[in-house]
Amino acid sequence: MTRLKMGMVGGGIGSFIGDVHRKAASIDGMIELVCGSFSSSKEKSLQSAAALGISDDRAYGTFEEMIEKEARLPEDKRMDFVAVVTPNHMHFPPAKMALEYGFHVICDKPLSLHIDEALELEKVVHSSGKIFALTHNYTGYPMVKQAKAMVAKGDIGEIRKINVHYLQGWLSTSVEKTGQKQAAWRVDPKRSGMGGALGDIGTHAENLAEYIAGIKINELAADLTAFGEGRILDDDGNILIRLENGAKGIITFSQIATGEENNLGIKIYGTKGSLEWHQENPNELIVKWLDQPKQIFTPGGNGGYPESSEYVRVPAGHPEGYLEGFATIYRSFAKEIFSIKDGKNPSSIPDFPTVADGVRGMKFIHAAVESSQQNAKWVPL
Amino acid sequence: MTRLKMGMVGGGIGSFIGDVHRKAASIDGMIELVCGSFSSSKEKSLQSAAALGISDDRAYGTFEEMIEKEARLPEDKRMDFVAVVTPNHMHFPPAKMALEYGFHVICDKPLSLHIDEALELEKVVHSSGKIFALTHNYTGYPMVKQAKAMVAKGDIGEIRKINVHYLQGWLSTSVEKTGQKQAAWRVDPKRSGMGGALGDIGTHAENLAEYIAGIKINELAADLTAFGEGRILDDDGNILIRLENGAKGIITFSQIATGEENNLGIKIYGTKGSLEWHQENPNELIVKWLDQPKQIFTPGGNGGYPESSEYVRVPAGHPEGYLEGFATIYRSFAKEIFSIKDGKNPSSIPDFPTVADGVRGMKFIHAAVESSQQNAKWVPL
Amino acid sequence: MTRLKMGMVGGGIGSFIGDVHRKAASIDGMIELVCGSFSSSKEKSLQSAAALGISDDRAYGTFEEMIEKEARLPEDKRMDFVAVVTPNHMHFPPAKMALEYGFHVICDKPLSLHIDEALELEKVVHSSGKIFALTHNYTGYPMVKQAKAMVAKGDIGEIRKINVHYLQGWLSTSVEKTGQKQAAWRVDPKRSGMGGALGDIGTHAENLAEYIAGIKINELAADLTAFGEGRILDDDGNILIRLENGAKGIITFSQIATGEENNLGIKIYGTKGSLEWHQENPNELIVKWLDQPKQIFTPGGNGGYPESSEYVRVPAGHPEGYLEGFATIYRSFAKEIFSIKDGKNPSSIPDFPTVADGVRGMKFIHAAVESSQQNAKWVPL
Amino acid sequence: MTRLKMGMVGGGIGSFIGDVHRKAASIDGMIELVCGSFSSSKEKSLQSAAALGISDDRAYGTFEEMIEKEARLPEDKRMDFVAVVTPNHMHFPPAKMALEYGFHVICDKPLSLHIDEALELEKVVHSSGKIFALTHNYTGYPMVKQAKAMVAKGDIGEIRKINVHYLQGWLSTSVEKTGQKQAAWRVDPKRSGMGGALGDIGTHAENLAEYIAGIKINELAADLTAFGEGRILDDDGNILIRLENGAKGIITFSQIATGEENNLGIKIYGTKGSLEWHQENPNELIVKWLDQPKQIFTPGGNGGYPESSEYVRVPAGHPEGYLEGFATIYRSFAKEIFSIKDGKNPSSIPDFPTVADGVRGMKFIHAAVESSQQNAKWVPL
Repeated sequence: MTRLKMGMVGGGIGSFIGDVHRKAASIDGMIELVCGSFSSSKEKSLQSAAALGISDDRAYGTFEEMIEKEARLPEDKRMDFVAVVTPNHMHFPPAKMALEYGFHVICDKPLSLHIDEALELEKVVHSSGKIFALTHNYTGYPMVKQAKAMVAKGDIGEIRKINVHYLQGWLSTSVEKTGQKQAAWRVDPKRSGMGGALGDIGTHAENLAEYIAGIKINELAADLTAFGEGRILDDDGNILIRLENGAKGIITFSQIATGEENNLGIKIYGTKGSLEWHQENPNELIVKWLDQPKQIFTPGGNGGYPESSEYVRVPAGHPEGYLEGFATIYRSFAKEIFSIKDGKNPSSIPDFPTVADGVRGMKFIHAAVESSQQNAKWVPL
Repeated sequence: MTRLKMGMVGGGIGSFIGDVHRKAASIDGMIELVCGSFSSSKEKSLQSAAALGISDDRAYGTFEEMIEKEARLPEDKRMDFVAVVTPNHMHFPPAKMALEYGFHVICDKPLSLHIDEALELEKVVHSSGKIFALTHNYTGYPMVKQAKAMVAKGDIGEIRKINVHYLQGWLSTSVEKTGQKQAAWRVDPKRSGMGGALGDIGTHAENLAEYIAGIKINELAADLTAFGEGRILDDDGNILIRLENGAKGIITFSQIATGEENNLGIKIYGTKGSLEWHQENPNELIVKWLDQPKQIFTPGGNGGYPESSEYVRVPAGHPEGYLEGFATIYRSFAKEIFSIKDGKNPSSIPDFPTVADGVRGMKFIHAAVESSQQNAKWVPL
Repeated sequence: MTRLKMGMVGGGIGSFIGDVHRKAASIDGMIELVCGSFSSSKEKSLQSAAALGISDDRAYGTFEEMIEKEARLPEDKRMDFVAVVTPNHMHFPPAKMALEYGFHVICDKPLSLHIDEALELEKVVHSSGKIFALTHNYTGYPMVKQAKAMVAKGDIGEIRKINVHYLQGWLSTSVEKTGQKQAAWRVDPKRSGMGGALGDIGTHAENLAEYIAGIKINELAADLTAFGEGRILDDDGNILIRLENGAKGIITFSQIATGEENNLGIKIYGTKGSLEWHQENPNELIVKWLDQPKQIFTPGGNGGYPESSEYVRVPAGHPEGYLEGFATIYRSFAKEIFSIKDGKNPSSIPDFPTVADGVRGMKFIHAAVESSQQNAKWVPL
Repeated sequence: MTRLKMGMVGGGIGSFIGDVHRKAASIDGMIELVCGSFSSSKEKSLQSAAALGISDDRAYGTFEEMIEKEARLPEDKRMDFVAVVTPNHMHFPPAKMALEYGFHVICDKPLSLHIDEALELEKVVHSSGKIFALTHNYTGYPMVKQAKAMVAKGDIGEIRKINVHYLQGWLSTSVEKTGQKQAAWRVDPKRSGMGGALGDIGTHAENLAEYIAGIKINELAADLTAFGEGRILDDDGNILIRLENGAKGIITFSQIATGEENNLGIKIYGTKGSLEWHQENPNELIVKWLDQPKQIFTPGGNGGYPESSEYVRVPAGHPEGYLEGFATIYRSFAKEIFSIKDGKNPSSIPDFPTVADGVRGMKFIHAAVESSQQNAKWVPL
C-alpha cells in the first residue's frame, strides 16, 4: 500500500488545528504530508516545512502557487488531496481552486464565510467529481457511531427530544485583546463569518444531533448573545429546535462558560430508550431504557454493533481520544480516494461529513443569526 | 423540647408524597403527626390513621372537619400546623382555611390551580400572620445551599448563563390509562392546573435556578408539547430564559424522557467560575474555575461554607438524600414556628420557600403556557 | 400502630453516632425515644434528655440505673429495647445487663472489647430469647441488598475475587491530641480494643464482603500499621483474604488516607459477572457482565429485585443515603420485635446483623492482629 | 527534520500490539517504518510488509536476517532502531542482537523470559552505548506525569499508602482453548515466562507505582492463583507491598475479573494529600487534600505543571488516549536518539522506561512467584 500524499493550506508550526490534522492524518499510516502553503508568507511556510521534514521545493507561499505547481508534477509525485486548515474566510478559495484543479479536498468547518460560497462550493464538488470531506470530527468517535447505529436500528424507538450542549470557557475573558491568535480571528466577522461561537462550535452541535438522530431540524428559535466586551459576534447561544418528525429540543452553546474545557454532550430521547454521550469522556455511551437497567457501551466492548466496532483501533478499555476520532474522518476519506483510484464509483453515502453537511451548517448559522436578530423568531432551516 | 404537632391533609397510606412528608417531618425529632384528613372518605382516613398510630378521634373525613375540630381543642393538644399534601387543585382550599383558623401551613407545590388563588393565598398568609412554607424541597440539599452561598459571596462573579434540566421518563408511555394514580391526576387539567410537567417539575427547575442565582427570570419563550397520546397538558418543554441582570439560559424539562428517573440538574456560569449540581448525585457540587483546577465540594467536606454545613446531619462522606433535603424544609419551618412561639418576630428572610415562591411558580406556569400558545413568543414573568 | 419505646445508652447531645441512631430510629415512624443514660454523668444526661424532649424522670445517670428502673415500670410505659451507642468498651456491659433484664438490644459495632465478651454475649442473647441487632448499617443500603440477591441467585456465577476498601483520612494528623473526642477513644486500646481502624471500619469491610458474597473468609494475612505519631493501635491495614470456596481477595482500610471522607467500596468478581458498589455514591450498583454491556442498577429502578426494592422508601432517582440505610437496620429490628409481640417465633434468618455477625467481627479483629504481629502470617478466621 | 527509520520484529498484520506500536510511532511524525521481520515465516512477513507499504526487499524472514542485512545498508537507508513487539520469550534474542549490531532498541514488557536474560541485556545495553526503551506505556499519560510531578514537589507530603489495581476479564473463560492467539501465548510458560497475569499486567502496576511515587518496593507478600481450568500460570494475584520509606500498600491484578476491560488504577496517599488516577478515564487526576476541596486536574487544564503539559498534544478538554500515551514513549525515545545524533550525551535520567525498569519488573515477577510458592512469605525485591 502506498500512502496518499497530502498538501496542506494553513497549519503552520504553532497552529492548533494544523497539528491536529497532521497527527490525525498520520495515525493510520495511510497518508503522508508532502507539501504545503503553511502560512501567508513564503518565509514562514518554509520554516514550517523544514520543521515538518518537507523539502523546500514543496513549501509554497500561497495556496494558488501550491495548487498550480503541484498540478504540474507527475502523478506519482504530486499531492493527492488538499487539507484546508485555515480560518473560515480562507476555506472557500483554496477548496474551490483545488477541486477545479482535480484535487480531492478535506476542509475544516464551518464550510465557508457565507452561505453563497457554500452553495457554490457544493456545485463545484459535484461538477468536479472529486471527493470532499468536512472535518466534523466528533462524528468519528466510535460511541457516536454506536449511537447512530442504535437509532437507525430503532433500538430507542421514535425520537421525541434532543438536547445538545457545547460549552467552552476560553473566551470568558477578552483573550482576543491579549494577542491570542485563535481568539483574534474567531471574534472577527471578516475571518469568522456571521457566527462566532455559533459557527465555531454551534455547528458541531447541530451536525452531531442530525448525524446521530438521522432526522433534520425543521426550524429554530435562537437567542444569541455577545457577552464579551466589544464583541460583535455571539459568544453564547440558546436555541429551541423542532425536528422534521415532531421531536423537540435544545441546542445550547457557549465560549464564555467559565471553567468548561470542551464540554460537548448530547442526549436523545426516544419512545423506547435514550442515548447520552459526552465528548470529554468519549468512550462511554450511556443508554437508558424504558424497562431495563441503564447500560454503558464502550468502544469494542460487549454488545457494540459492528457499525461502531469497525472504528475501534485498540481493545476495549484502552481509551481512544480526540485525535483518533479525527483520524477516522481522514481514514474514511482516504479509503474513499483509494476506492476511486481502484476504479470504483464514489460512495452514495460516504462515511464522512460532506459538502452537504457543510451547506447545512451554513444554513444553520444563517437561520440562527436571522432568528436572533428577530428576537428568537422561528426560522426554517 | 416538645414537638410540634402536625395535622395532614391528604397523604393516606399508599400515597407517595404523603409518606415523604411524614418521614421528612420525623427525621429531626421536632415534629409529630397527631391528626389528619388523609383521604376523601372518612373510612379510608380512619384506616390510614390506624396504620399511622393516630387515634380514631383525630382521623377526619374532610379537611374542613379537621380544621374546625382541631381549632376547638385545647392548645396543648391541638395541631400546630397543617401539611397539605394533596393534588394541586386541593392545595388552596385547605391552606386558606387553615390559615384563617390560625394554623401555620406547609404545602406542596405548585401553590395552586390558578394564579388567582395564589395571589389570594398570599394575601391570606400576610393577613393571618401565620407561617407558610412551600415544599420546594430541592433547595434543602446542602450542596444547593453551598451553591447559593458561593453565588451570594461573588465567588463565581457575575452570572451570565444558567442551564437547568429536569428530566423524568415515567410518563413515556400512557401510564395514566393503566390506573396509575400519580399519573392520572397529573395529566388532568382539573386537578393539575394549566401545566402538566411544567407545573410538576418545571416549577422546581425555575425555583432552583432563582434560588441559587439570587436573580429573577425577566422573560421566557416556551415550547411546550404533549407527546403522550390524548394528553391535554404538556409532558415536555423547552424554555429560553432571560434574567434580570442580562444573563441568558435554558430550562428544559420532560416526563417523557425515557429512562430518566429524577434527573434534575443545574449549571450556572459566572465571569469567574461556574457551578454544577445534579440531584441524583446530590452530595457533590462541581465548581469549575477560570484559572484553577475544578473542585468538588461535599456536604461537611473541606472548604464548605457554614451556610452549607449547618444543614449537614452526618460527617462528610456519609451521603444524605432526598428525604434529608426535604426534612430541612420541615426543620426550618419548625424552627420558625418555635421562634414565634418564643415571642420573636417572623424572619424577614425565612429559610424555606414561602408563599412568594409559590406565587412566582404560578406566574412561571402562566407565562410559559401563554408563550407556548403563541409559538414561543417572549412573555414577561 | 403504637411505636416501640427506645432507651439509649450513650449518645448524649453532641455525639455523632447517638444522633445518627436517633434519626435512623425515627425515620420510619415505628420507634420513639423514651429514656436514656446518655452520658457518664447524671447532670449531662439530664441536659441531653431535656434537649431531646425526654422528661427528667426518664434521664438516668448510669445504664444500670436505667435498666433497673425501666424494668420496674409498667409494660405500656417502659422501654421495649436498649440502643447501645457508646465507645467499644461500653458495649458489652449494658448489652448483657439489658438482655438479662428482658430487653431487646440494638448495639453499635464492633460487638465488644474482647472476643471473650463477644462469645459470652452470644450465649446471653440465646439464653435470653431476646432480639439482638448489631448496626452494621452498610448492609441496609438497597443496592447492597440488590448485590446480595444477585449473588444468591447465581447471576454472577461462582465468586473468584473480592476486593474491599474502606478509606478515611480523618486520622491523617494527630487529631486525638487536639481534644477531638471521636478520635481520642478510637486510638485508645482501653476503650477501642485490639483494633484501631481495624475495629472501627475494617470490621465493616469484612461484614459487607461476607454479607453480599454469602461466603466466609477462611484465613487472612494482615499487615497493620500505626502511622500516627505515638499511636498504639493500627490506623491502616492491608489484608490478603482467602474464602471458603477458593476465592481470593483483599481488604484494605485506612484512617490516614488523606482526603478520603468515607470511601467504602467493594468489587466482587464471579465467573459470569461482577458487582461494584461505593458507599459514597450508594444509589448505583455497577454490574459488569461477561458478554453484555455494563449495567447500572438503582434503588427502585428498572430490573431491581424485590429483595432490593422492598427497602426503597422513595421512587427511583430520589437518592437515599446513610441515614436511610441505617434506618433499615432499625426498621427490620423493630419489625422483628413487633412480630414477636404478635406471638410469632423469632426469624431463623433475621433481616439485620446479629450477635453472630458481631462474634465474627471480633474473630476478624483477633485474627488480623495476630497475623500482623507475626509478619502477616496466615491465620484462620 | 528527517524521520527516524524503524525496523520491527514481530507485529505482523492482525497483531494487536504491533499495530499499536506502529500507530504510536507515527502520531508525532518523527518515525517511519522501513522494514520488519513481522512473522516467523518469510511468506507472512512479506504479506504484512505489503499491507504496510514496505517494499519486499525490506521484509525479512527472521530478526537475524533483518539485523544483519540492515546493518550492511548505507546509513541513510538502514533502520535507526528496532522495535521488538513479540511474545515475551522473543524479547531478549532480537534486542540483544540489535544492540550488538549498533541499533537502538525499543521493546515490549516484560523485558525477558528470565531474570538472567534481563541482567545480561542490561549489561549489553550499557556496553553498547545504544538507547533502550521499554514500553511501559502507561507512564506516558499526561496525568501520570502530573501525578509524578506533584509527588516530586512534595505536594502530597510523605507517602504512606499505595493501592494499585489492574483488572481485566478477558481470561475469565478458557479463551486460550478457542484458538485466541493473544491468550495462547500468555498462558504458556515457555512463551510468557514465570508470570501469567503477573508478567503481563502486574508489572505495569508495579512500574506505575514506583514511577509516580519515586520510591521503591522493598518487599512483597504475594498470593497468586490460576483460576482458569488447566492453567499453569497465575491469572490473578493479590500482593502486599512495603516500600523503602515505610509506606505500605497493595497491588491486586487479575485477568479473570469478569467484565473488566482494562481497569488499571492507582491511589497514592501522602501526609498532605492523595492522588487517584484511572487508566480507563485517563484525562482526570483526582487530588484529595487534607484541608481543601477535592480537585480534578486535566491535561493542559488549569493548574497543571509544565512537567505534565509538555506532553499534551491538544487543548484541554480534547481527550487523549492509550495511543497518545504510548506515542509519548516513542517520542521521548526518538528525541533521545536525535539528541545523540546531534552529538549530545545520553540523558542521565531518560524520559522513558529503560532497561533498569525492565530488570526491576523481572525481579518483581521472580519475587512474587517465590513469595506465592511459599504461601505469601515476604520476599525482598
